[in-house]
Amino acid sequence: MEYKVTSPAVLREPLVVPDKLLMGPGPSNAPQRVLDAMSKPILGHLHPETLKIMDDIKEGVRYLFQTTNAATFCLSASGHGGMEATLCNLLEDGDVVLIGHTGHWGDRSADMATRYGADVRTVKSKVGQSLSLEDIRTALVQHKPSVLFLTQGDSSTGVLQGLEGVGALCHANNCLLIVDTVASLGGTPFFMDRWEVDAVYTGSQKVLGAPPGITPMSFSHRAVERFKSRNTKVKVYYWDMALVGDYWGCFGRPRIYHHTISATLLYGLREAIALACEESLPTLIARHQDCAQRLYRGLEAAGFELYANSKDRLATVTTIKVPQGVDWLKVAQYAMKTYMVEISGGLGPTAGQVFRIGLMGQNATTERVDRVLQVFTEAVKSVQPNVQIKGKI
Amino acid sequence: MEYKVTSPAVLREPLVVPDKLLMGPGPSNAPQRVLDAMSKPILGHLHPETLKIMDDIKEGVRYLFQTTNAATFCLSASGHGGMEATLCNLLEDGDVVLIGHTGHWGDRSADMATRYGADVRTVKSKVGQSLSLEDIRTALVQHKPSVLFLTQGDSSTGVLQGLEGVGALCHANNCLLIVDTVASLGGTPFFMDRWEVDAVYTGSQKVLGAPPGITPMSFSHRAVERFKSRNTKVKVYYWDMALVGDYWGCFGRPRIYHHTISATLLYGLREAIALACEESLPTLIARHQDCAQRLYRGLEAAGFELYANSKDRLATVTTIKVPQGVDWLKVAQYAMKTYMVEISGGLGPTAGQVFRIGLMGQNATTERVDRVLQVFTEAVKSVQPNVQIKGKI
Repeated sequence: MEYKVTSPAVLREPLVVPDKLLMGPGPSNAPQRVLDAMSKPILGHLHPETLKIMDDIKEGVRYLFQTTNAATFCLSASGHGGMEATLCNLLEDGDVVLIGHTGHWGDRSADMATRYGADVRTVKSKVGQSLSLEDIRTALVQHKPSVLFLTQGDSSTGVLQGLEGVGALCHANNCLLIVDTVASLGGTPFFMDRWEVDAVYTGSQKVLGAPPGITPMSFSHRAVERFKSRNTKVKVYYWDMALVGDYWGCFGRPRIYHHTISATLLYGLREAIALACEESLPTLIARHQDCAQRLYRGLEAAGFELYANSKDRLATVTTIKVPQGVDWLKVAQYAMKTYMVEISGGLGPTAGQVFRIGLMGQNATTERVDRVLQVFTEAVKSVQPNVQIKGKI
Repeated sequence: MEYKVTSPAVLREPLVVPDKLLMGPGPSNAPQRVLDAMSKPILGHLHPETLKIMDDIKEGVRYLFQTTNAATFCLSASGHGGMEATLCNLLEDGDVVLIGHTGHWGDRSADMATRYGADVRTVKSKVGQSLSLEDIRTALVQHKPSVLFLTQGDSSTGVLQGLEGVGALCHANNCLLIVDTVASLGGTPFFMDRWEVDAVYTGSQKVLGAPPGITPMSFSHRAVERFKSRNTKVKVYYWDMALVGDYWGCFGRPRIYHHTISATLLYGLREAIALACEESLPTLIARHQDCAQRLYRGLEAAGFELYANSKDRLATVTTIKVPQGVDWLKVAQYAMKTYMVEISGGLGPTAGQVFRIGLMGQNATTERVDRVLQVFTEAVKSVQPNVQIKGKI
């Protein structure tokens, strides 16, 4: 018998996919229109219909980022790929990069930049707070970085980083600005061009409600110039801005075959962006902001304490301090087991310290806020009936 | 007005996805069961049901590669990501890598390895042929590489590279063997363990008929040892074998959050692999081989000349010399416009010189071979009625 490794029995069982309410920090539930689109037939990676869908997405992404940048496209990778691609395209060996650290994504970006050979410096915010413009100015003067990396919404801490004025400050200091909007875009205002942001990426599976695996991003003309003046090739073919950009038809050159894009993910993302456009950015953002306020009020009325400073809260991901004596994991398990509702624990620096509740995309509604409040308070009471929290539950 | 970039009108139009017969070098048409699976609800990246699906896939991939390797998982990227990940994990600055060149994928892998700082050497086959074991032995002795890279099925030339004996030869020369099976797996025999292959990846969107965007791969214990003894961190977080492997539960350590996997693509791939397992590898491969023979006979009877040497032909992608005076692009356009059938031109070294017809997955049937033969010959005759080819059309 030539085939020594036999066919696994588990694959004779049917595929099981339960329908859950995803109220963690993402992915969020995808709208039915997005799910339906993904069962459409596969198209080739250079078919005219595929290129048309890519063009539609490009226009939509420019709207979402509020930019007219030519270099606007998607990566065929998760949001982590977006983080790598911004750093990898804009950094060369020995370049100083300054990481604005407001949580886990500061650590992750520092790890990546180190691997790319950069000289990594960090400016860290206080716990549950964002960095002030003054914090950033001081660090820019001290470290003289060629790139500053900020996370607009750090999903590990629920901290929103203010961006107004940062781009201009960077440019006055001969520095480019990268911003991670994976967890924030569509839930909080973002103006790439007005705020002079040089590189940005977002998550498809958060506010947009598309599947993960495809990552919208954009580079400013300054970033493209920096890229063009590199002394060395970008270390990763798959992240190379010039090649991905030529696949997406960004630079007025003929389209090239850079890799085989996932038609399925394009369909889902295209429909998700179309939904966001139909709703309009101001309305989409206002809905998330209103829902977040309702959630904060509900949580505080129930006696819970929020982790992020009131002026620095990210609408899309709310962090709640785990009350003394409460086992967060049991709470999350209760919510999932009893109601198929996802509530998450912390991540990185907040692991074990917080719960995280996400309000994203079609989950940012009054009904779902009330639903998650009810499930969460019941779960905490069920796990620890004698819980000592500030107020009543 | 704060929002200067307005919502694009194109996104108010419906998504248009025609149903084509994909007889190019991939993607192939996905079976309905695969398409249906992808409209199932999104799951979180660490939900038990997601991990179960990943485990199922892992078992299936081991079967497909005929390996018992612990380090078997998928990358959340296209096949190009697989190529990068094998090179990136096994190479450090200055390492000598030998590329066995049988077409375009030799150039692509050389580009990537150069970016990773390797010292790239090449051994090139004759046009339309594979490398002999003797060619490889000579090059190994001459260049003393730490890694040899081979493409089992080069989709640009339609050349099948023999692998028997190569792994043992590499190991006798203190070299690891990477094999690209993107276009070949499931259409031609492949035995990772028996042939002592150290790193392999394949395409989801070829014989398997899953969507692109997720790439099965596997590393041998030798490759894992080489990885462990690296002096430097792998340059790319996203490709880091240890981290991806820990997400996929390969090394007996607790699962980690490495990135957010695309549940949608997992569903599609899981069902595609299940279908391959149900059919069984020997039957699947025999079906592709039989269909390829039928295609060769049909093409030769019609007077066409095949590009790849008869002993070196890849069953999944057939390359046909473009007859004198025929405009290949017009032929492809005729087939698409008249019948919605994809027939491709060349790629890289074969651009403009060949047609490429793919027989992959559910397109590898007698009916579809006959269909593509009929469409192709009609297209050529239509574009160039006075075509001078060897025989009759």
